[in-house]
Amino acid sequence: MSLVTLGSAAYDTVESPFGSRVRALGGSGVYASFAASFFTQSRLVAVVGEDWNPEYSELLRSHGVDLTGLEIRKGEKTTFWHGRYPADMNCCQTLDIQLNVMLEYSPEAPESWKNAPYVLLGNGAPEADVSLLDSMNRPKLVVADTMNYYIDNAREALVALLRRIDGLILNDGEAKQLTGVDSSLDAARKILEMGPRFVVVKRGEYGAFWMSENELYLVPSYPTRKVVDPTGAGDSFAGAMMGVLAEEQDLTPATVKKALLYATVVASLNIEGFSLERFQNVRREEIEERVAQFREMLVF
Amino acid sequence: MSLVTLGSAAYDTVESPFGSRVRALGGSGVYASFAASFFTQSRLVAVVGEDWNPEYSELLRSHGVDLTGLEIRKGEKTTFWHGRYPADMNCCQTLDIQLNVMLEYSPEAPESWKNAPYVLLGNGAPEADVSLLDSMNRPKLVVADTMNYYIDNAREALVALLRRIDGLILNDGEAKQLTGVDSSLDAARKILEMGPRFVVVKRGEYGAFWMSENELYLVPSYPTRKVVDPTGAGDSFAGAMMGVLAEEQDLTPATVKKALLYATVVASLNIEGFSLERFQNVRREEIEERVAQFREMLVF
Repeated sequence: MSLVTLGSAAYDTVESPFGSRVRALGGSGVYASFAASFFTQSRLVAVVGEDWNPEYSELLRSHGVDLTGLEIRKGEKTTFWHGRYPADMNCCQTLDIQLNVMLEYSPEAPESWKNAPYVLLGNGAPEADVSLLDSMNRPKLVVADTMNYYIDNAREALVALLRRIDGLILNDGEAKQLTGVDSSLDAARKILEMGPRFVVVKRGEYGAFWMSENELYLVPSYPTRKVVDPTGAGDSFAGAMMGVLAEEQDLTPATVKKALLYATVVASLNIEGFSLERFQNVRREEIEERVAQFREMLVF
Repeated sequence: MSLVTLGSAAYDTVESPFGSRVRALGGSGVYASFAASFFTQSRLVAVVGEDWNPEYSELLRSHGVDLTGLEIRKGEKTTFWHGRYPADMNCCQTLDIQLNVMLEYSPEAPESWKNAPYVLLGNGAPEADVSLLDSMNRPKLVVADTMNYYIDNAREALVALLRRIDGLILNDGEAKQLTGVDSSLDAARKILEMGPRFVVVKRGEYGAFWMSENELYLVPSYPTRKVVDPTGAGDSFAGAMMGVLAEEQDLTPATVKKALLYATVVASLNIEGFSLERFQNVRREEIEERVAQFREMLVF
């Protein structure tokens, strides 16, 4: 089944203890749609400027990402982000962000995508998420990813969005920030009262959990020793999770657990290289091998 | 199979956001031996003063804890601890600690316990651990629990102890403190080079992992909503883990995973009440029910 992902396509300059990259391929929509394309028909809605490198489009296309929804705007510049990870890799410092072409972006789904059943609203402005949703015909499952910036600066729009989505993905710090509640489990329960019927809370190196009214599923993170660049970890987690859900077309406990397992493994592969350097060379069998290895580690 | 646990038997005064208790039953040996007694023949080596409440001995005995190794010293006072947990329950503040009778304690195993195959050296001075080990005939499996205090104040004795044990249990902060390494996985690897053939790192609300040279097992924590008093969480985890290992008498992956699962569940039950108030009323079936429920939550 097809998944439509909305998110940024950007140039990322990243510094980590393992090196740096200048204006490399990045953006929430890029990471998420690429991750989803391992599992399902993946479609990206994004906007870039005329400085966009066509090789990056080619990279995505060659992995099966449909770019019909990628708008290239003349006379504008692609979104740019510059971040630095400290030695403990736990959080990153944003040194510069230039939204550029995304500043005035009211995305719409291409005509042929308006009936797509699965939608991932990747990290981005809630107003843009609403714009995309308004252009579509009641998708079957809508999941949004959010981040601290929008909780701080677009809370009202975000809270309104929560009533239009099925699931919310965010990290534990953001869950606490959104609800004012100190425990991530209690914060997740509070988010369920705000609209979504499930919430996925990512806890960095400690894993993630999925909560709905009557369900709670826990997954530790995959213990990779080789974190080179955590950029896009959350986006690739969300993309892979939605890719599996779109492919399986149900939300049974078995499917949800499978989605969380693959999401965890795909995110772990992504962060083992800068930008999409590692990610673009990952073979599906490599994912399966790591999933099998991960299962061995999990106590149940 | 029988398990000998060395640890403190103490009076604990505890304050948490949910209330307080004055001079209640506590101590690493008490929590650990009680937890182990759900699963195996549990024996406690400890020392108390003449102010020891005989009802506390009775409580332990009635749960199957053999107190042949409990020394009651005339003219001395029982160890006392006073702690306070803040609103987030994440760490506790020690307001007072009086080691009293434990200050000069060189424990020995009772004659009939000298051949016991399983030994848990609960939280306590490394010198006392060595004293107990010296009194026994090469146990089959020796596991030690340690804490920040001894890493700071008895590092040399602790490092020497590491060469005499099979497994070390500690929390992630302590693993980093002991090794100077920032990631808990890397810290665990470093600990394996210091002597033990396995290490169990507890990560509080994020769960725990077991690592040996060729194994890594991950377990999230059981998401109880009702943390009343975290005192003894680590001790009951260690006691239950060793109780299962002693009963199963092997270290196959299946047994190790089972031990971690039960340890997690038993610790979660303990912290739902002050002192042993909740713990003493836990039925074995309740543990099994929670284990079954927990398995449902775990992604694998």
